Parts: sequence; C-alpha cells; structure tokens
Amino acid sequence: MKWRRVLRKVVVLYLMGTCATLTLTGPALAQDPLPSWNEGPAKQAIVEFVRATTDKASQKYVPPEERIATFDQDGTLWVSHPMYTQVMFCLDRVPAVVKAKPELAKVEPFKTVLSGNQEAMAKLSMKDLEKILAATLTGMSVEEFYAEAKKWIETARDPRWKRPYTELTYLPMLEVLKYLRANGFKTYIVTGGGQDFVRVYSERVYGIPPEQVVGTAGGTKYGYGKDGKPFLTKEPKLLLNDNNAGKPEGIHLMIGRRPHAAFGNSTGDRQMLEYTGAGPGARLMMLVLHDDAKREYAYGPAEGLPDTKVGTFTRALYDEAKKDGWFVISMKKDWKKIFAWE
Amino acid sequence: MKWRRVLRKVVVLYLMGTCATLTLTGPALAQDPLPSWNEGPAKQAIVEFVRATTDKASQKYVPPEERIATFDQDGTLWVSHPMYTQVMFCLDRVPAVVKAKPELAKVEPFKTVLSGNQEAMAKLSMKDLEKILAATLTGMSVEEFYAEAKKWIETARDPRWKRPYTELTYLPMLEVLKYLRANGFKTYIVTGGGQDFVRVYSERVYGIPPEQVVGTAGGTKYGYGKDGKPFLTKEPKLLLNDNNAGKPEGIHLMIGRRPHAAFGNSTGDRQMLEYTGAGPGARLMMLVLHDDAKREYAYGPAEGLPDTKVGTFTRALYDEAKKDGWFVISMKKDWKKIFAWE
Repeated sequence: MKWRRVLRKVVVLYLMGTCATLTLTGPALAQDPLPSWNEGPAKQAIVEFVRATTDKASQKYVPPEERIATFDQDGTLWVSHPMYTQVMFCLDRVPAVVKAKPELAKVEPFKTVLSGNQEAMAKLSMKDLEKILAATLTGMSVEEFYAEAKKWIETARDPRWKRPYTELTYLPMLEVLKYLRANGFKTYIVTGGGQDFVRVYSERVYGIPPEQVVGTAGGTKYGYGKDGKPFLTKEPKLLLNDNNAGKPEGIHLMIGRRPHAAFGNSTGDRQMLEYTGAGPGARLMMLVLHDDAKREYAYGPAEGLPDTKVGTFTRALYDEAKKDGWFVISMKKDWKKIFAWE
Repeated sequence: MKWRRVLRKVVVLYLMGTCATLTLTGPALAQDPLPSWNEGPAKQAIVEFVRATTDKASQKYVPPEERIATFDQDGTLWVSHPMYTQVMFCLDRVPAVVKAKPELAKVEPFKTVLSGNQEAMAKLSMKDLEKILAATLTGMSVEEFYAEAKKWIETARDPRWKRPYTELTYLPMLEVLKYLRANGFKTYIVTGGGQDFVRVYSERVYGIPPEQVVGTAGGTKYGYGKDGKPFLTKEPKLLLNDNNAGKPEGIHLMIGRRPHAAFGNSTGDRQMLEYTGAGPGARLMMLVLHDDAKREYAYGPAEGLPDTKVGTFTRALYDEAKKDGWFVISMKKDWKKIFAWE
C-alpha cells in the first residue's frame, strides 16, 4: 500500500510536471509572432496567409520549396526619407572620387555636390544623380567597393535621428521576415537600390544572405591584377534596372519562381505585386503607407498629403490595391512600434 | 537483493541497448559518401575538403553561410556529346517555329535544319546556331517556354543510349552534390547553357532548385495579356553570356559570394576555377576529363586525342590545372560507375 501511494504520488507529480511544462511552453508556442503590430486586418492577413500556406490540410497549402517572399527595401524595410540611403552614400563619396580624378572638381554635378549647398543639391536632376551614381559606384574592384560601403554604413548617421541607417529598419517588418522564415519561406530583398550596396549589410541587418538580394545591378568585368590574381571590376553598364517592370523581370532572372508574398511601398513595386498576384493559390500583396508624420514621415494619398519623388505612392496605386485585394499597411494604425530602439 | 539484481540487469540491458544503437549508427555514419568513386587523389581531395571546411577545429573551417559550391553542367554533370542537349532541343523545335512563321522555311539556317541532312547540319556556323537559338528560345512567354521544354526533356532520347537525357547524368557527380549538401554546402549550377532551360529539370534531376541555377540568360519583358493578366515574354536580348569570364561575372551577379569549390570540364570553366582559387582559405577546384571512350567519350589532352568544339579541354588548361593545384578527374580511372543504370 505504501508503495502504491508513493507510485500514485510520483504519477501525480509527473503529470503535474507535464502540466507545468505545458503551461511553460504553452504561451511560448502561442506567442504572438508579430508583437509590434496592432490587431487589425493587416496583421490578420499575414497570420492567416502563413496558416493557410503551411497547413497541409489547407487548400492553399504551398510546398516549402515554393515559399518565396519578396520585400522592397527603401520605404518598406527601412526609412527612405528625406533621401534614399544609397544616394547619401554616393554623395558622401564624391570628395574621394574627385580626389582621385581632380578634373571632376570643375564639372557639374560634382561641383555642386562639393559646394555643400543643400539648396542647389536638392535641385539636381535625375541625370545629374545618375552621373554621381556611375562615378561613385563603378570603376573599382568589387572588394574595394564592399570595403568602402561597409565602412560608410557603419559610421554614417541619419540627419534626423542621428543613428546609423541600419537602425532605421522597421521593427514590424523585421518581425514579418522572421515569422515567414520560421515558417519555411525564403525571404528576398527586391530593391531598386544597388544590389552590391544592399548585400554589404543585408545578412547582418535583415538576416537575408547576399544571394537573396535582387537589386539594380551593373555589369562587372573579369581581369587580372599585377600579381596575376583575378578580380572583378564594377562597370558603368546597367544590366538590371530593378524598378517597376524591372522587378518581376529581376525576380525571374535571379529567382526563377513567382513569389507567394510581396511587400512594397511605392509605384516602383506595382508590377512586382501584380506579378505575385497573378499566380494561382495563396498570394499576399501588401503596401506600406507612410502616414505617420510624428513617428516617421507622412506622404502619399491616404491623408490627401502631397506626394513625394522618393517612394511615390499615388492615388492610382491606392485604387489598384483596393481593387486587387492588396493590403495597405498604415504605419500609424497598424504599427505599435516603428523602430526597435523606440 | 532481488531488486538490486533486476536493477543491475536493467542498467546492463540499457547500456547494451546504447551500444547496440552505437553499433547500428556507427556504420551508417562511416558509410562511404562517394561509393561510385575509386580510391585515389580525386576522391581523397573531396573528402578531405569536406572534412577541413566543416570541422570547427580546423584552420580551414568555413562557416555554413559561406559554403558555396558551383558546378558546370554540360560535360561536368551530364553528357554533352556529340552535341549539347539544349542545342538538340532547339533543333527539334525548328519545325514548330517554322509552322508559326512559314516565311522561315526558305531562309537559312532553318532550311538546312528542316532538310534533316545531318552532314549539312554539322557544318552550320556558330552564327547559324545563334539564329536558331534566338528563334527557338525567345518570343514566347516564360510559361509557354517552360511547358515546351518540360515536354521535350521528358520525351526526347539521346541517340547513343536511347535514354532520356536526364538519365545521362554522372552518378559520381550526383554523389558529390549530395555529399556537399549533406555537409551544409549550397550547390549551384553555373552553366553556359540557358538558365531557363536548365531550371526546368534541375530540381528533379540534381536536387538543385531554380534559384540556384546560374546560366546564360536573356532579358524578359513584362506585359499584360488580353485578360489583363501580367506575364513575361522571353526577349532576344542577351543579359549574361555565362561562359569563360562570364562565369565569375554571373556568380557575382546571381550569388554575390565567391565559391569554395568549383567543378568544370572545359576551357569555358577556366575563369570560374581561377576565381574560386583566388579566395583565401579552403578551396577545391576540379576538372572532369573525358578519357573513357568505351563507357562515355574520350577527347582532350590526356591521351593526345583530338580535341572537340563541344567541351574543349586544351593542353593549356591541363597545364594550368597542374600548376594551380586543381584536380583533374579521370572518368576512366576515378569513376567506378558512370551512370546510375549501368
């Protein structure tokens, strides 16, 4: 009898232990994967998409190898105002480029950039910017470029928050990236920005390896150094303009599968979302709307605010989103927190 | 005492069970990962490379995210003689193309291909072949192309063995692919062949997903069908000629990391192997030498045989391999078995 009682006690304790374990792991399993999101249709759409595509019993189940999700970067994963980060990098590089080629000092647009006159710089045309990009992003070896970009991204500070640009990533979107990956999705950046530039920090900042960064890409040229060692030089030859129609074209070139989910924030992402939505089965298309002037910036169609040339979100895009069942994420209403350090 | 004896028995049984488990898993762990390879320097080099790059205590340890291995396809992973498989596909497609555009029937090189005159076809110039490739690989939607290529690859037969081309893959190389992947390597195809063509069967045949196929690539054009649905059309515009210097350039464009291992079989792979070897740490460069006329084909420098235009392996390449510490794999001596069905 004594043994029986002990045994019963052990069993009870064991079961209690199990229950305690369940209680401990229960909340962990049920933990909110998107804690920086307010409850609402956007958050609900993401959670429901993940459930439907990963549940084998679901009609919308997607086999793991087909789970591709693409993310625009500027304005979707991190701040892009008042100017794209990569353009800031290029402008900062102008003095070094002029030092190497002094004849540029008297030539526009380099003269204006060197003057430091912000007003004049704001008036630079698209063609001027292209000249600056070509001069600062090409003509060096891939390794030299990586070293320069790495140094800059680690030291440069954003003018508003005085923080490294890599701290201006949106926490709710980082949560989406992690949540999708935890559910077998391969996450890609598909950016109008330079592919080589983004690759420098994408693994550290987003957990996205270089081979999953699709971006505007120039050609390289294979050659040999004085030591006989081969190296690649970045050429001023555009291979892929990864904007607008270039996004689905780039996705086909570099991934070769149609995404099941795509996230953007501007007209440059329209075709990527259209292309994603044109596939059969479960598809999730989302646009980040910048409508929070206090915590970040506000522009675009939502509040009748004037639009911007940096991350344009037109009324027409908003209407297409509504018509095609894309979700518009309101930074103001949907995001509890915008930055991790808030 | 009785209880003690029982307890002792349980412990002994438990330990025996553990030992039995060890004995059972022991041979599985020690199983030869390359059973189709004869013992020799090539096999040894592969095994030693995997050991050194995956052993954390090794000076040559490579973190998993950096484990990239690239493989040429034609002549490295499958048979490329007497003619590249993709060229056979293009020639087979000529009647369908001419049916859609009857005016081509009287124009060279289509006239010659339609004649079926093998002798005349063998004399077609590189320029002629390019015309055939452009006509048969472009001008349709990506989906139409995939459907055509899939149908062909499933039904076409090689002239010598009368088997599907996808059965003419080299078993020893399939073992290397699996072995590397089992050790955390990401395996890529880097082929002079068409990227879209290879992507049709790469996952099924090699276990390599489409996003890990780098190949000669043309541009696509985004547009809308009559139903308003967007689609991509294959354009006759060359974006990447993934041969020779184009291989490291393509690797940089599509992967953005330098491989730690690279496998090829011809002068078209030279720069890929040089580029791989130029990186620090553990690097493995290997060339497949076709020296087995009986079981497959023999050409190239090894036995003083005449070289070929299909998979050229010059004396100069052989000398570079020896000088730079690349391994030359002799199909005759190193491979126990060439095809799985042998």
